[in-house]
This record gives sequence, C-alpha cells and structure tokens, in this order.
Amino acid sequence: MIYVTRREHFNAAHKLYNESWSPEKNETVFGKCANPNWHGHNYELFVTVKGSVNPQTGFVVNLKDLSALIRTEICDKLDHKNLNLDVDFMQGVMTSTENVAIVIFNKLAPKIKELGTNLHAIKLCETENNCVEYFGE
Amino acid sequence: MIYVTRREHFNAAHKLYNESWSPEKNETVFGKCANPNWHGHNYELFVTVKGSVNPQTGFVVNLKDLSALIRTEICDKLDHKNLNLDVDFMQGVMTSTENVAIVIFNKLAPKIKELGTNLHAIKLCETENNCVEYFGE
Amino acid sequence: MIYVTRREHFNAAHKLYNESWSPEKNETVFGKCANPNWHGHNYELFVTVKGSVNPQTGFVVNLKDLSALIRTEICDKLDHKNLNLDVDFMQGVMTSTENVAIVIFNKLAPKIKELGTNLHAIKLCETENNCVEYFGE
Amino acid sequence: MIYVTRREHFNAAHKLYNESWSPEKNETVFGKCANPNWHGHNYELFVTVKGSVNPQTGFVVNLKDLSALIRTEICDKLDHKNLNLDVDFMQGVMTSTENVAIVIFNKLAPKIKELGTNLHAIKLCETENNCVEYFGE
Amino acid sequence: MIYVTRREHFNAAHKLYNESWSPEKNETVFGKCANPNWHGHNYELFVTVKGSVNPQTGFVVNLKDLSALIRTEICDKLDHKNLNLDVDFMQGVMTSTENVAIVIFNKLAPKIKELGTNLHAIKLCETENNCVEYFGE
Amino acid sequence: MIYVTRREHFNAAHKLYNESWSPEKNETVFGKCANPNWHGHNYELFVTVKGSVNPQTGFVVNLKDLSALIRTEICDKLDHKNLNLDVDFMQGVMTSTENVAIVIFNKLAPKIKELGTNLHAIKLCETENNCVEYFGE
Repeated sequence: MIYVTRREHFNAAHKLYNESWSPEKNETVFGKCANPNWHGHNYELFVTVKGSVNPQTGFVVNLKDLSALIRTEICDKLDHKNLNLDVDFMQGVMTSTENVAIVIFNKLAPKIKELGTNLHAIKLCETENNCVEYFGE
Repeated sequence: MIYVTRREHFNAAHKLYNESWSPEKNETVFGKCANPNWHGHNYELFVTVKGSVNPQTGFVVNLKDLSALIRTEICDKLDHKNLNLDVDFMQGVMTSTENVAIVIFNKLAPKIKELGTNLHAIKLCETENNCVEYFGE
Repeated sequence: MIYVTRREHFNAAHKLYNESWSPEKNETVFGKCANPNWHGHNYELFVTVKGSVNPQTGFVVNLKDLSALIRTEICDKLDHKNLNLDVDFMQGVMTSTENVAIVIFNKLAPKIKELGTNLHAIKLCETENNCVEYFGE
Repeated sequence: MIYVTRREHFNAAHKLYNESWSPEKNETVFGKCANPNWHGHNYELFVTVKGSVNPQTGFVVNLKDLSALIRTEICDKLDHKNLNLDVDFMQGVMTSTENVAIVIFNKLAPKIKELGTNLHAIKLCETENNCVEYFGE
Repeated sequence: MIYVTRREHFNAAHKLYNESWSPEKNETVFGKCANPNWHGHNYELFVTVKGSVNPQTGFVVNLKDLSALIRTEICDKLDHKNLNLDVDFMQGVMTSTENVAIVIFNKLAPKIKELGTNLHAIKLCETENNCVEYFGE
Repeated sequence: MIYVTRREHFNAAHKLYNESWSPEKNETVFGKCANPNWHGHNYELFVTVKGSVNPQTGFVVNLKDLSALIRTEICDKLDHKNLNLDVDFMQGVMTSTENVAIVIFNKLAPKIKELGTNLHAIKLCETENNCVEYFGE
C-alpha cells in the first residue's frame, strides 16, 4: 500500500455568511469573512489516493488520468468561480474550508474508484496558514 | 544606499471587466477572469524602500513602522474586500495586477516619505505564477 | 471527523547543552548546536485540531479563536525569546525540537479542549529540513 | 512516541519505459515521461523516523547521524545520476516515484534500526505537484 | 513602465561536458554534473516583460497570450527532454543554466515583440539554490 | 553580462541593542528584538555575481567554487553563532539585517574578484517577510 498525492489549484471568491442570522451575528462570528461583497483565495488542493503498485507501470494510478479527473470534476467547476453562487454541488453549503473539502471528497471518491484506486484524503489550503484535511469519515 | 523589502498579504475578490465592452468581448479578452460573480486571490505584496542606514539603529526604516503603515493604508482597506466594489481609491480602475500595484505605489509613496525614507518598488503577486513590479515611473 | 491546521511562527534563540556533561561531550554530541553563546531559528508551528463540523458555521473551530489562543499561550511567550532562559514552562527542558513540540502539545491540549475541540498534533519545524510531529502519546 | 522528519535532495535523470511494450504503448501510457533520451527532476526526499525521546539529548535520533546516513546510503548514489542506468539497487525497477520511494524505504529501514530508531515513512516528491508516501507495508 | 513576470516550468535531463576535454578534465571542472549518463532538474522559468499599461485592459500583455507563447516556443520543446540531445536550438551549446537562459531570451525576445511588448529579463532556476538572470546584453 | 545567484543559509542568534541608550529606549525602538537574552533566525543569503559566460564551461563562475567561498568566508563564521558576540568582523556593528548584508558584501567582494568575477548584490532575508538587498554603494 502506497499513497500518491497530486496538487492542483483553483482561485475563487466566497463569503462566510449564515442567512438565518442577523448581519451583526455574522460579523461577530465570521469577522471580515462575512463581507457581503465577497473576498477570495488561491486554493491549493491535495488529492491523496492509496493503492498497490501496478508492476507493469510502477504506478498506483496514472497521474495524467488523476490530474485530468480532478480538473474536470473539481477545478473546472471551482476555478475563477464564486463558491457560493456558481457551483451547483455547493448550493446551500456554508463555504468554509472544511465544507469545501468534504464536498470535494464526496464528489471525487466514486470517480477515483472508476480509475481503479481509492481516494484516501483531501487536503485543502485556503492560505498558507489555514488548511483542512478530510479522510471521508 | 540599501534596499529593504517588507512582505504583507491580503485576500480579495475581483473581476476583470470593461463595462464599455459587450459581455462577449469581455469573455474573449479576459476569459475566466471576467466571471460576473467574481473570483479571488491571496495577494502577496512586497514593498521595497531604499535609503541609507541610520547608524544609531542600523535601520533604513523601522520595519514595525513600515509594516504598520502598509497595513493601515493598504491591507486594512483591501483584505477580505472586493477590489472593484469596496475600495474608494480603486473606483473606476480596472483591477488588473498592474493597476492595483500602481495604485498601491501612488498611495504609499508620500506616506513612506513621511517615515523618512523612499519607496523604491511595489511588487504584487496575484498567484505564484503571476507578479508585477512597479518603480513609480 | 475533519482535521484543521493553523500555522504560526516564532523566532527564538536556544542551545543544546546537557549541563551534566563536559563541554567536550556536548560538543561531540550536539556539534555547533552546543555553542554557549546561543544560535537561533525561525520556528514554524503547525497546530492540528480534529472534530466534527458545526453545521451553523461550517467550522470545527473558529480559526480566529484558535490563532488567538496559540499566540497568547505559545507565541507571545516564545517569540523573540531565549528558549533556555526566558520561558517558565521550559525550565530544565533540553530545548530540542522534539521537546519543544511536546511542551507545546501539553500546554495547548487542555486550552483547546476549552475551545470545544481536540488537539490532534503539533508539528514544529526548526528549519525547512528538520521537523518533528507529536500526537500526544 | 514522536516523529522526526529530515529533508534531503537529489537531482537525477530517468525515464518511464516498459521494455516489454512497444514504443507506441510506452508513449500512450507514459506520455512525455517515456522520452528515450531521458528527462529529470529535483527530487525532495523526506525521511520520517519514530521513537521515544532520549532524556539525555532530547533527541529521537541525532539528525547529524540520520542526515549522514541518508546521504551515504541514498543521495550519494542517486544525486546527479541516471536512476535507470547508474544505481545498482534499482536495476530492473520501473523508476516511478512510487518504486523509488519503496526502494529507498527498504534500503534505509535496516540502517536506521542500527542508529537505534525506526523508519516510519518515506515521502518522495518528483515535483511540487507529485508526491508519494510509503510506510513499509 | 511596469514589469510583469510569468512563471513556467520544465523538467529536463542534461549534462555539463566539454567534448574537447578529457573525461578527467570534465570530471575536475564539472564534478557530478559531468556524469555521462545524464542527470536532471525541475527548471523554473520566469519571463519578465516591460511596457505601459493598456487603459482598456489594465494589462501590459495578456498573460494568457504570454503563457501560451512561452509554452509553445520553450516549454513544449524543453519539457521532459534532454537539453543536450533533443533541442534543435541548443545544438552545440554547453547546457549550463547561463547558456540555457541566454538561448531562451534570444528565442523569446522577437516573439514577445510580436505580442506588442518587450522582453525585459529571463530568470532561470535549476534548483532553489542556483538561479541566473539575463537582460539581453 | 549575466547574473548568477547562489543561495546559502545560516542560523544565528542576535539582538538589536544600542548600548548608548537606556533599556527603555532600546525597548521603545527595537521592541522584542531588544530582548537581552537574544533571539534568532534562519537567515537566507543570496549572493549574486555578474560577468560574462566562459565559452569553455558555459559558466560565469563555477558554483562549486562560489558556494565553497561563501561557506568558508561567511557561513562557517555565522552559522550557529551569536552575531553580536562570536563574529570578529561584526564587533561593534548593530546586527540589523541591513548591516549584516553590508558586512557580508564587503567581506565577499574582494574574494569573489579573486575567483575572476564580480559581486553584484547581497540579498539577506531574516524571515520570509523581511529582506534587504545591497549593491555595494
């Protein structure tokens, strides 16, 4: 069993805002992140799969295929987008780094299975100071 | 003469959109950057001053003062903001990295003079692949 | 269960020196790190908490609170300090990266519990080549 | 139990090519990596050991010794080499990042035991986008 | 006048070897870099153009166009290649970082002029420790 | 004319303290940097030479020689040292990043001339946020 990690990127706008709260409470809890006019980030996405090495290729998975999958399923839909407004599979989701990572995990896991390997972890960094990691349970 | 550079950050939303053009032309020229719902970046800002070394302190400028100035004048006004909507001194400016760097230079130069030194350059990176540098002329 | 990591910094002086050994033995074991006049590092501290996501906020923990806690409890006491001389909770501790990480873990764990989540790991890097990670047991 | 990671480097040439396949199939599977004239990388190698802290030194392992071991056993034999042609213990191995990491693990594990501690993981990055991690089983 | 820098990458094999010298002299001068079986690097390429800002776009140059040009003219021809064997415009050139940077400058300068701006500098890093910068004269 | 930059490192302790001032004034001006018990940094040193390319080698300077020179003249004398106490050529110098860069420039310039090339700039970073650059005049 070996773990392979591919890094991809997307640049997106978002805000943290709970519509069931008053503006004041949003401001108190989320601070600057609640700015109604949005802010944004250069997100770094690390997708880790685990599996055994195919003796013919030396690969757990062909990274060309994994990278293409991440781009098609995730980055093309999130890059240069507004995470709150533009992404169908994030409707109604509070776009915290935690929730974006979980949504990405759940979206990629079955697709990575079709590539013949298993998704192990999603690590998502909003800035170089703030990262989350999700293992699917 | 020695050059001192301080790095600061701000995370902001923006779009590249020329209101005098059709949506199609904006899409052609600016691509994904023209998304009407905005996207965003973690901006890295490098402020370089030049001057001679004060023999009492060993400093060209006290970086505590320079950092505080950059935060007050620039980062507090740009961080977690929408560059197109929220920043009074960017009204009517196309928020390309080039223009944001020029605006920051022009805003900081007189304030840095009040600190007793001279602004040499503003370097602004929108991503780790795209940076601009402006020397004031 | 999801893992959230916050990065903070502190710059400190220290030396590695076992007072019960001769200077020669200290030199043999610790090399340049035993310099009696100290040396120093820019330490990078990664604090990882684990928990479930609060559906109201999308957060495991509010990073404003976690960051403030790390600064109050750790960075304010270690930054621009001498780890061997200035830090009450490191008295008598050999200030290896291993031991500094363990001390930080033990100091932060109960405080992070008060924030309503659980400390998972402390990762501490002395240089970009040397890091340790401690999980509390 | 605490984990200590040392980073080392080597710069090497290699290609991904399965000699039992046609050139066309190699091209299809490995793409540019199958270039018969080789390509190369700056590899980053992270060696993680785990153990308890020696109370006399504060160390799990003396990083001078661990670094010297990694250089002698691995980097001196891989740095500025052709991984397919020049490395006796990689003969007949497809030089994917996965396989290089496994070979390094198996070579270092017994030697690190002689240093009095245990190899926990080998992480090997071929580029800043592609890394693998192997824990020995 | 403002300066815009685009970063691109290529991974390549090469060796430093002067065919008019003995193997011993090559070994003495170039050390490990003279390995006849090649070694390789992840090269980082920074292309800086200078110009004035187009008031319609806010751009010195459209980075989509600049990036596409660098990829077509340089990266597609160098990436996953052997710099000594595979690159027609490097035939007979000692593939030091200095010379590769100069060749890239001379190849890109006229093409960037066709984009309507001017090449200012090529910065090329062979490793994070070794970089060269060339301004065309 | 081409510019070649070599990066080296040293980890050192220091403090900023003007002995002709009161402790209170030192504290006011230098803040935490005036801690009498020292603090420290991982310094990054970038040495840039300029010259023409030797057609036999493709080099401005052999980086093995430049690196060895920087280590002998600078890093061996500063690494794991106290910049205020341990370095003969820094006696009486306020150890600001500015002054350390100037001292390094003046020490390296004549030695680099002996290597047959010219020192262009010293860039010294105390942290990833604070750098200075000195060109010798």
